[in-house]
Amino acid sequence: MTLILALDFGGTKLAAALVNIGSRKWLRYERRLSPANADASTDLEIMRTLIYSLLEDAKPAAIGVSFGGPVDASTGTVRLSHHVGGWENIPLKGLLEDEFGIPVGVDNDANVAALGEHRFGAGEGYDSLFYITVSTGVGGGWILNGKPWRGAGGMAGEIGHMVVDPAGPVCLCGKRGCVERLASGPYMAQNVREILEKEPQRRGGLRGGEVLKGLVGDNLELLTGQLVSEAAAAGDDLAKEVLYKAAWALGVGIGNVANLMNPQRFVLGGGVTKAGADFWQVLQRVARETALPEVDFEIVPAVLGDDAPLWGAVAIALIANPKFVNE
Amino acid sequence: MTLILALDFGGTKLAAALVNIGSRKWLRYERRLSPANADASTDLEIMRTLIYSLLEDAKPAAIGVSFGGPVDASTGTVRLSHHVGGWENIPLKGLLEDEFGIPVGVDNDANVAALGEHRFGAGEGYDSLFYITVSTGVGGGWILNGKPWRGAGGMAGEIGHMVVDPAGPVCLCGKRGCVERLASGPYMAQNVREILEKEPQRRGGLRGGEVLKGLVGDNLELLTGQLVSEAAAAGDDLAKEVLYKAAWALGVGIGNVANLMNPQRFVLGGGVTKAGADFWQVLQRVARETALPEVDFEIVPAVLGDDAPLWGAVAIALIANPKFVNE
Repeated sequence: MTLILALDFGGTKLAAALVNIGSRKWLRYERRLSPANADASTDLEIMRTLIYSLLEDAKPAAIGVSFGGPVDASTGTVRLSHHVGGWENIPLKGLLEDEFGIPVGVDNDANVAALGEHRFGAGEGYDSLFYITVSTGVGGGWILNGKPWRGAGGMAGEIGHMVVDPAGPVCLCGKRGCVERLASGPYMAQNVREILEKEPQRRGGLRGGEVLKGLVGDNLELLTGQLVSEAAAAGDDLAKEVLYKAAWALGVGIGNVANLMNPQRFVLGGGVTKAGADFWQVLQRVARETALPEVDFEIVPAVLGDDAPLWGAVAIALIANPKFVNE
Repeated sequence: MTLILALDFGGTKLAAALVNIGSRKWLRYERRLSPANADASTDLEIMRTLIYSLLEDAKPAAIGVSFGGPVDASTGTVRLSHHVGGWENIPLKGLLEDEFGIPVGVDNDANVAALGEHRFGAGEGYDSLFYITVSTGVGGGWILNGKPWRGAGGMAGEIGHMVVDPAGPVCLCGKRGCVERLASGPYMAQNVREILEKEPQRRGGLRGGEVLKGLVGDNLELLTGQLVSEAAAAGDDLAKEVLYKAAWALGVGIGNVANLMNPQRFVLGGGVTKAGADFWQVLQRVARETALPEVDFEIVPAVLGDDAPLWGAVAIALIANPKFVNE
């Protein structure tokens, strides 16, 4: 029995799990919300509590870590967190190796989730894939030749800021019509609000919006990407327009990536990708139209859900310990 | 003295060269235009003549081949040529190995040129680069981890059909606003013609076109990408508008690729990239604006020129013969 410890430092939650090598079921699993005023040291303290509670007397052979922010994977140093203060240049791999005396691997959540789906999920048996998460942001992680491709500076995977509509709305990054600007949950909600502000006659009128209005009353600030998806499923024309524009943006992005890199598979996770069959149908059609006819690919939903970072962390741990490279 | 034979089956020309391993100068070099009614067998016959004329009594240790069309590099089989008939499923590697009894490597011209620039040109010492040729078409080739990345089906590198302006003009591929539709030489000439048809008052007027008109008289069919570049350099506003739109399209494409793959370098070759400092300035600025601030990259001109496929073929030959993997 050889144990692997998997850790997930998300933006708002912390999770730890223990698994036997070769098993597809967690032996033990702990999860905790990050407190509102969290910083790096409180997060680390909570994670240590989770770890010691999980381990009891068990001695894992390696630790894999998914971190929700930029990481230098070669040294295992966190660059920063966009959600929690104090993470600037924290040598997370070194800290954990010093404390537990076993090999540790650390990478950012998109790369780790890509590896998780590759080893244990929708990408099993595929040598090249691009994993895309569509949630509060849009990010991605590469597997090429069966291994993570992180880019020269560890920045690869940023499909979220690919420009697909240069005449589109302005993104936080300063450009117009990025994939993320059209397809992330919060931006979908914002797009509904902006259309209603520009065309108030659509509010509750025949051209859509009535279901949305029912969902949030008059308080459009309460709109979320999920409510837009729900309203679209209930037939709201305005919600459908915004949701299909998101699917279009992702489809153009995926088709462009297919032409450029020709991976076997695209694996899509994150809340927005649960928007239903019509969303997927638009996305598949636009991606197929955008890619050249001779470029083959499949687009499939991720299967590991919220556990993708933890399963990816298991894969990172197996890579970190040279004894397990062929596991 | 160990010799390598490099072959270039271009769309309109055939070239062969002989080089000593380690040397940066051709020992011998032959080039012939492909006849107007060429097919695969006449091209092969001409190439055999070139080879035997080059070799005399010399015995090379390996052969590398650049082919101007889709190739299955794993088997060295040509899929087809878009310029010359009869190339469908020709096992070029096998034919040459049978005739010369030495290891042969075959790949398509964009991948080969990328490898040439990587080993002997503007990409020397860089582990990850994207080579882009901007000429009658726009294509690209990847080097990742120091090796070609061809994609699951050998189709990677197609930046030419990345959509950068979904409201732009219709491309031969059926989509609107592809990089190639805005930036290839023939399409730049077409864009000038289309603007003059739509706005005839610009023909020779103050708003540009006068230099272009001088270059081709009234026969706009004579326009080429190179003439557009020359007119832009001479200050023609219409030519500048079309040329800078091409630079913009390339800049958006490169910035998107930088976000997605984070390579160290972009190496740009092909006639259009010789359009001068203003073209490069627009391209560099737009690429920098399109990429995220934390994504670093350089864009540099190719240095091997028309010989890039032949030098790349040398690299392909070195890879094909296992004795030379570390050369």
